[in-house]
Amino acid sequence: MKFLISKNNLNRAINNVQRAISSRSPIPALTGILFQCYGNSLKLSATDTEMSIHSSVPAQIIEPGELVIPGRHIAEFSRKLPDLPIEFQSIGGGKLATVRYGLSEFNVNSYSSSDFPIIHMSGDEFSFSISSGEFKDIIRKVIYATSNDDSRPVFNGVLLEIEGDSAAVVATDTFRLALRRFKINPPAPKIINVVVPGKALNEAVRVMDGGEEVRVTLFKNHIMLETEDTVIKSRLISGKFPAYRQVIPQSFECVIRASIKELAESADRASLLTSDKNLLVMLQSTKKGVVISVRSESGWIREDIMAHMEGENLDIFFNVRYLNDALRSFDGDMILIKLTGPYTPALLTIPEDEDYLSIIVPARTSRE
Amino acid sequence: MKFLISKNNLNRAINNVQRAISSRSPIPALTGILFQCYGNSLKLSATDTEMSIHSSVPAQIIEPGELVIPGRHIAEFSRKLPDLPIEFQSIGGGKLATVRYGLSEFNVNSYSSSDFPIIHMSGDEFSFSISSGEFKDIIRKVIYATSNDDSRPVFNGVLLEIEGDSAAVVATDTFRLALRRFKINPPAPKIINVVVPGKALNEAVRVMDGGEEVRVTLFKNHIMLETEDTVIKSRLISGKFPAYRQVIPQSFECVIRASIKELAESADRASLLTSDKNLLVMLQSTKKGVVISVRSESGWIREDIMAHMEGENLDIFFNVRYLNDALRSFDGDMILIKLTGPYTPALLTIPEDEDYLSIIVPARTSRE
Repeated sequence: MKFLISKNNLNRAINNVQRAISSRSPIPALTGILFQCYGNSLKLSATDTEMSIHSSVPAQIIEPGELVIPGRHIAEFSRKLPDLPIEFQSIGGGKLATVRYGLSEFNVNSYSSSDFPIIHMSGDEFSFSISSGEFKDIIRKVIYATSNDDSRPVFNGVLLEIEGDSAAVVATDTFRLALRRFKINPPAPKIINVVVPGKALNEAVRVMDGGEEVRVTLFKNHIMLETEDTVIKSRLISGKFPAYRQVIPQSFECVIRASIKELAESADRASLLTSDKNLLVMLQSTKKGVVISVRSESGWIREDIMAHMEGENLDIFFNVRYLNDALRSFDGDMILIKLTGPYTPALLTIPEDEDYLSIIVPARTSRE
Repeated sequence: MKFLISKNNLNRAINNVQRAISSRSPIPALTGILFQCYGNSLKLSATDTEMSIHSSVPAQIIEPGELVIPGRHIAEFSRKLPDLPIEFQSIGGGKLATVRYGLSEFNVNSYSSSDFPIIHMSGDEFSFSISSGEFKDIIRKVIYATSNDDSRPVFNGVLLEIEGDSAAVVATDTFRLALRRFKINPPAPKIINVVVPGKALNEAVRVMDGGEEVRVTLFKNHIMLETEDTVIKSRLISGKFPAYRQVIPQSFECVIRASIKELAESADRASLLTSDKNLLVMLQSTKKGVVISVRSESGWIREDIMAHMEGENLDIFFNVRYLNDALRSFDGDMILIKLTGPYTPALLTIPEDEDYLSIIVPARTSRE
């Protein structure tokens, strides 16, 4: 293997794939990046066996071939390279990679590409495309509600449900839930119901540059997310996603309409008096507006927010992190907080977008 | 105590003083910020008893007085305030501070100012002023060579030596040394030789805005650094600073003249193959230039830098962090590295500034 590449292209490809590298693995090749050069391009791949990321960039190939280079070294090194043409060469049948730049050279012990695992995807395929802007927005609006508890993997994922041209993504950690509906084209030939790892979606959002399309392909046990130069493959999460429809409240005792910005800033200040032991803020709806308050050993805070209120006055306690995450996931000026009672889930929406909703389960406090 | 202040002024003053707050202290007042309002200004103070920082900002005083407010809470809180006039009031004889903004209020348990310690400075005084730009440059050029080993406090400080109008600052951790000479006005009436804590100098550099002057006043056991609105007081470090003059080499076997940028970038890349166990890079002077190289379990790197060389070819080993710190402390294009042998200190200077020099003690390696 021998090729020439610009510093920019090299760094772009490494940056795209490097988060899939296993930081620790008994298989040394998994801690590396697979370099494959054929035709006019260099393709880099990294994987932790659950997920793989592949990124192609232009390069001048002198001798086709492939090689696995330790990931940590090559990633840091590439960022520090001078802005000169960089030459990579495999030496000693893949035992060593030599990188030349200007008068200098870097030699790093490497591995054979035959040790690098490939994610095999099979079964019925269904594909649709979506603009990367919409894809990012959809993911951002639900990903915060995923859990990261490995004992219940299904909550670490995002449910993707498709029926005809109607699609929805749903995430929940059982304390809150976020749901975003969208349309796809072409319609799906049958009902689809899969759980996609949050990690793969986060990476997809990260590596996407603006403007392009994302192609989503579903296999029996895998998902593939493709942009112009990058491909993410991931295993799906097996297990049954909870029946979320019955959690969405339908009738309300109290509807608050307030500024998202003011509420979020007030909740943020109030959070200063919360602690890891007690993360709760009290939200009171009154005829004049909303009061957010916290009382702690250090003092107390009372934030008065002007709001429009319909229905009964209610006191309800929320984990301040859940309230903040939910508020920040909305675009727009005003939010609707719809309450049915102090112990039943609260529904958050904005008037101009019925396709997105966020639900927070209130906390019970020791006061009751 | 009662006053009105803008969010900007409040945050500027808190930001200036907050690094002097003791993060943990058996005296609760030491974890707070002293608020004193008299006349037309609010003065904030924080101290860890070794050092104190004081910062004054304009405020509209309604009722003069003073109070100690817990530092962590008030600092985070102030950054999150809306951009409205902020009202502070002491309640219950100083047991509570109430902060009002818009319709909302924050109440935080507070302490009496009588518990707040004052640093008393006495003895002969000597003062001089210096532009804050020059002050920052002087400190930046030596502070990296200080140690942070509490068992040998004198190495955590910077020696300030004054004789007439000639001043010098010197820092060393025994592995490297940095020396910067400068002129002062008025001349000192007698020889001054004091060791100033690195922490106080770091803070002084941090709180200084461009353009002003810094007034330096020395007392028997203290130093005071004043800008327009901020004062730093610090105890001096007692103990004898090592006799540094004899460490400065005077004659050389080999003088290398090379680009600072190229050397620093090469050393930075080479550092990727060093580890906490082995931080050494080899520097070789040859007729054509300089070679920096590292060999490790993972591979090896060889950086060839064009340079002008006079004298003998030499191989010398440096801790790569010391080499990088020293190179980054220089302004200018070209550096002179002056060597007397593989085991004797190397002298780094730039041709255009004889008032600054950096010395690195080479490492002995297991190869010898």
